[in-house]
Amino acid sequence: MRVIERVRELQAFSEGERAAGRRLALVPTMGALHAGHLGLVELARRRAERVVVSIFVNPTQFDDPADLRSYPRTLESDLAACRGAGVDVAFCPALEELYPAGHQTRVEVGELARPLCGAARPGHFRGVASVVAKLLLAARPQVAVFGEKDFQQLLVVRRMARDLCFDVEILGAPIAREPDGLALSSRNQRLSPEARRQAPALARALAAAERAVSAGERQAAALLHAARSELEKAPLLRIDYAELRDPETLEPTPERLAGPALLALAVFFPARKAGAEVRLIDNRVLRAA
Amino acid sequence: MRVIERVRELQAFSEGERAAGRRLALVPTMGALHAGHLGLVELARRRAERVVVSIFVNPTQFDDPADLRSYPRTLESDLAACRGAGVDVAFCPALEELYPAGHQTRVEVGELARPLCGAARPGHFRGVASVVAKLLLAARPQVAVFGEKDFQQLLVVRRMARDLCFDVEILGAPIAREPDGLALSSRNQRLSPEARRQAPALARALAAAERAVSAGERQAAALLHAARSELEKAPLLRIDYAELRDPETLEPTPERLAGPALLALAVFFPARKAGAEVRLIDNRVLRAA
Repeated sequence: MRVIERVRELQAFSEGERAAGRRLALVPTMGALHAGHLGLVELARRRAERVVVSIFVNPTQFDDPADLRSYPRTLESDLAACRGAGVDVAFCPALEELYPAGHQTRVEVGELARPLCGAARPGHFRGVASVVAKLLLAARPQVAVFGEKDFQQLLVVRRMARDLCFDVEILGAPIAREPDGLALSSRNQRLSPEARRQAPALARALAAAERAVSAGERQAAALLHAARSELEKAPLLRIDYAELRDPETLEPTPERLAGPALLALAVFFPARKAGAEVRLIDNRVLRAA
Repeated sequence: MRVIERVRELQAFSEGERAAGRRLALVPTMGALHAGHLGLVELARRRAERVVVSIFVNPTQFDDPADLRSYPRTLESDLAACRGAGVDVAFCPALEELYPAGHQTRVEVGELARPLCGAARPGHFRGVASVVAKLLLAARPQVAVFGEKDFQQLLVVRRMARDLCFDVEILGAPIAREPDGLALSSRNQRLSPEARRQAPALARALAAAERAVSAGERQAAALLHAARSELEKAPLLRIDYAELRDPETLEPTPERLAGPALLALAVFFPARKAGAEVRLIDNRVLRAA
């Protein structure tokens, strides 16, 4: 596995591979790799001859400086995990490589970036769209893989890529979960032990709504009630949002569902570190067709 | 010469040329081609084996709907001019090709886009940066050529390309002028006959400031006075701005110049069409080193 730190070097690698007729897949990560990321790599390997994993904690997508400071950084074990997963290139740029002195360009997506995490985390998706644009231009992949846990991010990135004429397919990969249902996230390791025990409430809330849909329920309010009831069983949990949205446009669903609906959840739990919090998200598309 | 209307087709062309080891140059235009554009093509031909000229009147960079409506559209003669100049590909996308239904992504440059034309034309450089990003991703050139008449645009595009990791050289080409000094512009043809006679006042103002610098003048106020005095000799002319700025950062120069300074002018003249106006710009870097 090659470790590349410079944009120019990655571009030269990519140009050579493309000229030789080989397809590249990019898996953008912020490191702290877990089995969810390795699932993305697996999917990438099925879709391309060369897999590039980028490892870069992108400061511009953190609305909360404390969250940025406490974000886990585990480069050596990340590189080992990449090697084990058959990654061809680990792209590990320094901050100044993606944000050179005097940088002042931002990529901004409109409507799709406004609700949900866009409302809860001002500037977050501007940071995401900007860094993903840079990573796509540095790696020039034919495919880029993003996890569906960050469902809104997937939509924002896909729209950005289409709107700016990126010649790339943006692929979503299913959410990987712990045996108790908790969606894998680098932030899980920051949960207090008791919060970790209660964290599967998110997955149970999604499942409760799904069961209600399967039983014929179509009222948005009733489905949200089913989900919130499960969340409220976890006393340490504080809801950030719990919303039903159109899974393509992210517009609010009608009162009575008539098609697929995204149930998107964001909550806070106490962190291991006293006084700090961890924000977790999860989602599920309810097939109320 | 090939005429390409689809982004996908241009990307396939570019990928093939790059894989074959040939360099591409892009000359982005809004059509209404004149000798200034052909100078850009000439420079492009010296720097690459394949020259792509894009012809697209980009609506998002017009802050004034009347200006957009009256912008000259002369596709047939533009294509003939491209053929005559040895252009390899004319890229003529329809509006929906670069702005598909539901598009909502914008590229925004900060400080460099704020003064001068950025202050006078709100949103203008957001439109420019966005469309140039799309064109660079559609054509994937190694070089892109922009005229120095739009000096601020050149700086904005160059910064955008660097900040987003575009693997492209942004090249500036010297301003082409009529025999009487008027900088070539597609908007010149909209001037009233009397305005056309007075329009060389812009070039004379730049020359007056240059003479003052050569004579040892270093006071910004005195240089601006020399320029404004020439502009005021054209009674039909109305000044939009006349400013001295750092030619790299576009920050205001010190009162007493200590290095190169950009003298940037923007003025309004009456159009041929009664009641309408034409906005002209011009500039010169004064070598007060």
